[in-house]
Amino acid sequence: MKTNTASLSIGGFAWVDLEREERCGTAEVVFGPGKTPDQILAIARTLKKAGQSVLITRTEKAVFQKLKKDFPGLLFHPEARILSWKNPAKKSSRSTGKKLRILVCAAGTSDLPVAEEAALTAEFLDNEVERLYDVGVAGLHRLLRGLDTLRSADVIIAVAGMEGTLPSVIGGLVACPVVAVPTSIGYGANLQGIAALLAMLTSCASGLTVVNIDNGFGAAIAAERMKHLIPNK
Amino acid sequence: MKTNTASLSIGGFAWVDLEREERCGTAEVVFGPGKTPDQILAIARTLKKAGQSVLITRTEKAVFQKLKKDFPGLLFHPEARILSWKNPAKKSSRSTGKKLRILVCAAGTSDLPVAEEAALTAEFLDNEVERLYDVGVAGLHRLLRGLDTLRSADVIIAVAGMEGTLPSVIGGLVACPVVAVPTSIGYGANLQGIAALLAMLTSCASGLTVVNIDNGFGAAIAAERMKHLIPNK
Amino acid sequence: MKTNTASLSIGGFAWVDLEREERCGTAEVVFGPGKTPDQILAIARTLKKAGQSVLITRTEKAVFQKLKKDFPGLLFHPEARILSWKNPAKKSSRSTGKKLRILVCAAGTSDLPVAEEAALTAEFLDNEVERLYDVGVAGLHRLLRGLDTLRSADVIIAVAGMEGTLPSVIGGLVACPVVAVPTSIGYGANLQGIAALLAMLTSCASGLTVVNIDNGFGAAIAAERMKHLIPNK
Amino acid sequence: MKTNTASLSIGGFAWVDLEREERCGTAEVVFGPGKTPDQILAIARTLKKAGQSVLITRTEKAVFQKLKKDFPGLLFHPEARILSWKNPAKKSSRSTGKKLRILVCAAGTSDLPVAEEAALTAEFLDNEVERLYDVGVAGLHRLLRGLDTLRSADVIIAVAGMEGTLPSVIGGLVACPVVAVPTSIGYGANLQGIAALLAMLTSCASGLTVVNIDNGFGAAIAAERMKHLIPNK
Amino acid sequence: MKTNTASLSIGGFAWVDLEREERCGTAEVVFGPGKTPDQILAIARTLKKAGQSVLITRTEKAVFQKLKKDFPGLLFHPEARILSWKNPAKKSSRSTGKKLRILVCAAGTSDLPVAEEAALTAEFLDNEVERLYDVGVAGLHRLLRGLDTLRSADVIIAVAGMEGTLPSVIGGLVACPVVAVPTSIGYGANLQGIAALLAMLTSCASGLTVVNIDNGFGAAIAAERMKHLIPNK
Amino acid sequence: MKTNTASLSIGGFAWVDLEREERCGTAEVVFGPGKTPDQILAIARTLKKAGQSVLITRTEKAVFQKLKKDFPGLLFHPEARILSWKNPAKKSSRSTGKKLRILVCAAGTSDLPVAEEAALTAEFLDNEVERLYDVGVAGLHRLLRGLDTLRSADVIIAVAGMEGTLPSVIGGLVACPVVAVPTSIGYGANLQGIAALLAMLTSCASGLTVVNIDNGFGAAIAAERMKHLIPNK
Amino acid sequence: MKTNTASLSIGGFAWVDLEREERCGTAEVVFGPGKTPDQILAIARTLKKAGQSVLITRTEKAVFQKLKKDFPGLLFHPEARILSWKNPAKKSSRSTGKKLRILVCAAGTSDLPVAEEAALTAEFLDNEVERLYDVGVAGLHRLLRGLDTLRSADVIIAVAGMEGTLPSVIGGLVACPVVAVPTSIGYGANLQGIAALLAMLTSCASGLTVVNIDNGFGAAIAAERMKHLIPNK
Amino acid sequence: MKTNTASLSIGGFAWVDLEREERCGTAEVVFGPGKTPDQILAIARTLKKAGQSVLITRTEKAVFQKLKKDFPGLLFHPEARILSWKNPAKKSSRSTGKKLRILVCAAGTSDLPVAEEAALTAEFLDNEVERLYDVGVAGLHRLLRGLDTLRSADVIIAVAGMEGTLPSVIGGLVACPVVAVPTSIGYGANLQGIAALLAMLTSCASGLTVVNIDNGFGAAIAAERMKHLIPNK
Repeated sequence: MKTNTASLSIGGFAWVDLEREERCGTAEVVFGPGKTPDQILAIARTLKKAGQSVLITRTEKAVFQKLKKDFPGLLFHPEARILSWKNPAKKSSRSTGKKLRILVCAAGTSDLPVAEEAALTAEFLDNEVERLYDVGVAGLHRLLRGLDTLRSADVIIAVAGMEGTLPSVIGGLVACPVVAVPTSIGYGANLQGIAALLAMLTSCASGLTVVNIDNGFGAAIAAERMKHLIPNK
Repeated sequence: MKTNTASLSIGGFAWVDLEREERCGTAEVVFGPGKTPDQILAIARTLKKAGQSVLITRTEKAVFQKLKKDFPGLLFHPEARILSWKNPAKKSSRSTGKKLRILVCAAGTSDLPVAEEAALTAEFLDNEVERLYDVGVAGLHRLLRGLDTLRSADVIIAVAGMEGTLPSVIGGLVACPVVAVPTSIGYGANLQGIAALLAMLTSCASGLTVVNIDNGFGAAIAAERMKHLIPNK
Repeated sequence: MKTNTASLSIGGFAWVDLEREERCGTAEVVFGPGKTPDQILAIARTLKKAGQSVLITRTEKAVFQKLKKDFPGLLFHPEARILSWKNPAKKSSRSTGKKLRILVCAAGTSDLPVAEEAALTAEFLDNEVERLYDVGVAGLHRLLRGLDTLRSADVIIAVAGMEGTLPSVIGGLVACPVVAVPTSIGYGANLQGIAALLAMLTSCASGLTVVNIDNGFGAAIAAERMKHLIPNK
Repeated sequence: MKTNTASLSIGGFAWVDLEREERCGTAEVVFGPGKTPDQILAIARTLKKAGQSVLITRTEKAVFQKLKKDFPGLLFHPEARILSWKNPAKKSSRSTGKKLRILVCAAGTSDLPVAEEAALTAEFLDNEVERLYDVGVAGLHRLLRGLDTLRSADVIIAVAGMEGTLPSVIGGLVACPVVAVPTSIGYGANLQGIAALLAMLTSCASGLTVVNIDNGFGAAIAAERMKHLIPNK
Repeated sequence: MKTNTASLSIGGFAWVDLEREERCGTAEVVFGPGKTPDQILAIARTLKKAGQSVLITRTEKAVFQKLKKDFPGLLFHPEARILSWKNPAKKSSRSTGKKLRILVCAAGTSDLPVAEEAALTAEFLDNEVERLYDVGVAGLHRLLRGLDTLRSADVIIAVAGMEGTLPSVIGGLVACPVVAVPTSIGYGANLQGIAALLAMLTSCASGLTVVNIDNGFGAAIAAERMKHLIPNK
Repeated sequence: MKTNTASLSIGGFAWVDLEREERCGTAEVVFGPGKTPDQILAIARTLKKAGQSVLITRTEKAVFQKLKKDFPGLLFHPEARILSWKNPAKKSSRSTGKKLRILVCAAGTSDLPVAEEAALTAEFLDNEVERLYDVGVAGLHRLLRGLDTLRSADVIIAVAGMEGTLPSVIGGLVACPVVAVPTSIGYGANLQGIAALLAMLTSCASGLTVVNIDNGFGAAIAAERMKHLIPNK
Repeated sequence: MKTNTASLSIGGFAWVDLEREERCGTAEVVFGPGKTPDQILAIARTLKKAGQSVLITRTEKAVFQKLKKDFPGLLFHPEARILSWKNPAKKSSRSTGKKLRILVCAAGTSDLPVAEEAALTAEFLDNEVERLYDVGVAGLHRLLRGLDTLRSADVIIAVAGMEGTLPSVIGGLVACPVVAVPTSIGYGANLQGIAALLAMLTSCASGLTVVNIDNGFGAAIAAERMKHLIPNK
Repeated sequence: MKTNTASLSIGGFAWVDLEREERCGTAEVVFGPGKTPDQILAIARTLKKAGQSVLITRTEKAVFQKLKKDFPGLLFHPEARILSWKNPAKKSSRSTGKKLRILVCAAGTSDLPVAEEAALTAEFLDNEVERLYDVGVAGLHRLLRGLDTLRSADVIIAVAGMEGTLPSVIGGLVACPVVAVPTSIGYGANLQGIAALLAMLTSCASGLTVVNIDNGFGAAIAAERMKHLIPNK
């Protein structure tokens, strides 16, 4: 294993993993919580200098204000709490030119922040993203009307809180990979998303896979890893 | 409150509640676990003498052997682990002549013991029971094909283990009361039925009600209580 | 299954289920949390245009301010956090003219917000609602004094926090359906209502059914589903 | 603190605490599980030699067979799984001649092993014990009929499984100390007695105290400690 | 059972239980959370008019401001969050003239609010209260130095957070009743007091009893119930 | 949605979903627990008649004995508890001719039953399966020596019990999809696999997905769904 | 990192880590559960051939029978379920000649299997082990009498089930490292050792460290790692 | 046991344990939460007067302001929330002159507050501390590059949130003691650090020990206790 790799240590607090894209298929992404705007700026500059694009999740407007000068064209998506900046100088990688049709489904309006975190991450990674929102099983016809959309996707990210039923029903309707994302939406016996998480893990629909509660970002990266299966042209 | 009521104390270990039917709509039922065949026989004889029918849940063949002499026509249902005996001398009560069309749905073959506990209890209480089994959401078309059956029921008892999705989907399709019964079928993150229980409690379909894990009997009694809403002829 | 139904998509974030009343017996109700006043206004207008009444749960004064112009006669119930508006243009439905006598019991003064959510929802749905509050079992005589009231109800909604005893005691006293609502009132081993929830699920009184913690609304809808058992005139 | 006390080390595996009666009011009792019959015999002989009586809890017939020769008059109570032997040579102690009227209540027939563990321990300690069994709240009149008995007790030990309601109701009816014992009787959401335990800890009836699940022995010792409040004659 | 008792309904939200002292040994106490200052004032006036003293727990300064005019001599204890007012017109009751020597022990400085809730409640009920604070087992000598104090108490209330060891150690040193109060002091694996609660319930010292997390008030009432054992003069 | 589908009801207890392969990419598989050998035989015959292969998971030798006459060439894998039979009459489907290189990694020898359930299922579905066992992180060099194997896989199924570290480490080393399978191997704080499950869900390596505890079968089906991304030739 | 290390793959199911002693200070130990006697024999032979001693934990008599021919002098300790064999051909290592005085304390007789697992492992690793058993805090004088023993140890392993108090009390009495081992001894709220585990993690005595429930072996290895601090002679 | 020790009672609320250093190796440290600045000042003055240094954990700037006059040279470390003051008049103790090389590793940038609490405490106790931060296993090369640093430490404190993998990987690479500190960093299935805690307790790397979630201080004291093993010069 190569250990004298291109990782950069910044100010003692971080060690930016510049070869992650080559190793894992996706460049390092900045997880916002617990980092000051100054720390994030330092990390973002390191990524920019290395010819990488910048994606910051679970962040806020103050960080946008801090970074916008250095990163022209920087976008802030308040609902998904995401900052994204495409580096015009980015070099091509193994996944360049590969594109998945990713369908993001959400059970309820309240699940949108998580669904949008997934959708925007997938778009940032150059995929073709379609959205099907507010299709919870309490009104099954809304989902069934979208059956053609469901069946034309390469990968489906199914986001649901409360009882977390949506991915199970979708899993029984389609043949493609379904990544289930439980959300913390609900109250009482929902236990901050644990109810939905358990439901997705024990689904009677075979072959669902699950990520952490509210982890829309992780679902998008899980989909991104599947590009590995698409032959290079 | 009347306290000098017709309760009978038996051998110090039990106090049979003979006026429960008048008070709560259903006569006392014998919960089998933790009672010896001799204790059950003594309780059953007390009920018989008081002109009541006998229903014993979560019981086993040894109890059947013990009781069959005294209770001609006694039936043992091994899958549901129920013993039932209709007293020919039973007096009519408030619910005599009332009949509900109860539909018992089960998600998987493994849920049948619980579903049958509900169905047999409901039949014992003179209801008209229909069964719709193995209609889990992994193959939604099996459930949707039964839509007319679902919509013609007075009450639906929806039994499911694993992720417990079935009652939520049914709740979104019908207007009648839906009593959800989680089962302990599953493994791992199912947590002996807790996953299904939480899913049913947090369902996005409004107005579902839930009973304890594996409590098919309780669901049938919950339905029986609804006879109270049917006007006496 | 009819899928080209009268659901209306609003601004990409919601898909109002306009045929829910026909299908499930109750029109769609707006769950407030996680929706902006603007989103709620848009949904409420869609419902109004479709000839439906508007009920918004877990909402706040700011939403009332936003909506009151468009909805003359709109009522805000601060304790229950409910907004309700009866549409004078509402068409009659299957349940029109049916009325249940619903008794809402609450164990303690602190359970009132949940009890009122149940009571106001039931009244919004044209039922006759009676209240019996602060009748927890620490002073059993307060409950027993109300025995006639308990026995004259069609359906009882029993609300309790802390150890959640009230529904068990009521369930042993009456023959009608009892819907138990645990509340998150309490501290320590109460675990935000889990103690009361578990107590209600494992009640020794048969045939109780349970809804999610603090879900007064769900209990009222569960009662509403029972109108299905009342023959049309 | 006196540390060169009369404790006896036996075979390296146990250290019998011979001054516990003087210090804590009750002599050491042998907790059966995890000890071989030979180990128990050795401990019992040590206690006998020191002029103490012998009580062994959670034990079984094999231990009775092993000990009966050495301990004439040894009693085995199979339901409570208790072995007791009164030492005719026992010296008087601080609590000699004090006697409490202890009432042991049990909610259901299945709670009897735990209730009997409490009752037999209390009797072994020379108290006057009364039993009131199968008085669960599903049939409240059975409990209310015993109101005089409840009010004449010095201490009440209230044993209940399932939803654990009984001690709360009793606590609201009497002024004496009430020690609540949850049992593991029940299934599903009962969580092996956790539901009853939480209910008792969060009771709306003030001043209940609680011991571990199935710990009938501990409840009897808790009562025994209260003899400390009775003035010496 | 007497049901036409002296309970007073106040404004629909509360039903003051005026015969509780006669029935349970202690008059009704006002639990502050979830009640407005106006509601508390109304309840307190009802108690005053009935010749009862007033104790309000878990309350705050605003309530003190609201009540002080009507209740001359009203005391506010900010650390324990208790308001107390002794009614000069109070009639004597069964426990009048009985006095227990209650020792309140606390493991750490942070446990003081709970310990004081117990101590002040016990003082309000005319007991003689001694305090032994900051005697956690990390410095065992501090506790052992107080051995005489421990052994001269009638009842010990042992308050501890974190790992909740204190009551177990005390239980092994004394013969009197020990009421254990877990507190929510701690972090991480303490789980808001659950660790201490479980430790106290599973103590190897026999005959401890336990109340809910942070429930200093409940421990004092549990002690108060023990006055029942003291013969009337 | 087509509802008059080719599902076959068998003896009232099961409804075989014959179009699942077309809809979900994999034909119905028989989950053994809770089904009698006779029921399994009936289901297997239905699948055979419909031209499908037969895979039975979590089964045992008795079922093998029951089926072997009707299914020549039937294989029983005792460690993985799997029965498999390839139907020579099987028709080609969408995934025919597609083959994934699937690497199954296991942390310890005790994880082999779960790992083999995954591996054998994947082989049954015509994939090329490689195994890398006993490569837990306590001896990291064993895993790192397999780095080329890891990087040449299309999909990795990473199986681990105890602390569940293996998938996180692998996820940081490769770009392909990694499906993490927690096992119930371990004791104490492992909580029957919950520790490993939580660790995998909260992994710091992005884009892992997780299936239920011990669900080797589900992981293989999750991989199978990814064939959907491989273009048809 | 050296990856072409001296690890030996055995029959596909195990990969013996022969350089673990050099790397981690202790040679590989065989964890018995889930391995057949044949697998264990194969692993043990590999260790023997490599000049290493053999320690097998959580094993049983059948394994002893299988191995005793090949390993003359093999010892089986039934209570601790340990097999140990010192290889006369063992080469010296970094820790050769270093010896710790390790004191193993156990709270109760039932904790002995875990305590012995720790003690025998420590002895196998050439330490000087002393035992202090049945010194639970219910009889504090038994522990205090051993104060000199406690203070003369290099490392203390403190084993306790039930409420897990012992390590906290010891931690407050000594300056040396204290490794706390919770056991699963207890019932009810003990939650199979979780209560003791939480108590040890939240101890008010600073600097305790904790291992998994029942993990006597792990505690001994934790002590062994501390030899690293003793300077080589 | 000496009980007339040099503990000082302060104002009734605290009892400063002045002989703790002699007894346990480290002087009493002030745990900030739940104490007012005035209380902390009083305790700190008592320690100063007794010739001890002052360390206050989990504190804040207001306390620094309160103390700085009395304690010239007082340091406040905001990230670790620690106040430290070295008493120039401190007398030498058993550990004076002993120094451990302690390596503090942290998995992510967000774990720094906990890591710094450990590091600063260890430095306060005169150890030589090295830091290796942001070396989580998602980029294993960052950790492996530090292998020499890892192997030259006397003790390693390994801090990690999320899935808590870092200590397991380190434990497999080094022979020295490894103290694992789970942090509450993460979300969803992390359960406020429980996931990391369980992973560390069930690690497949032998001989790890674990402290409470976020307890960097405790880890440093655990290391400090190991000085006991270093021979006095």
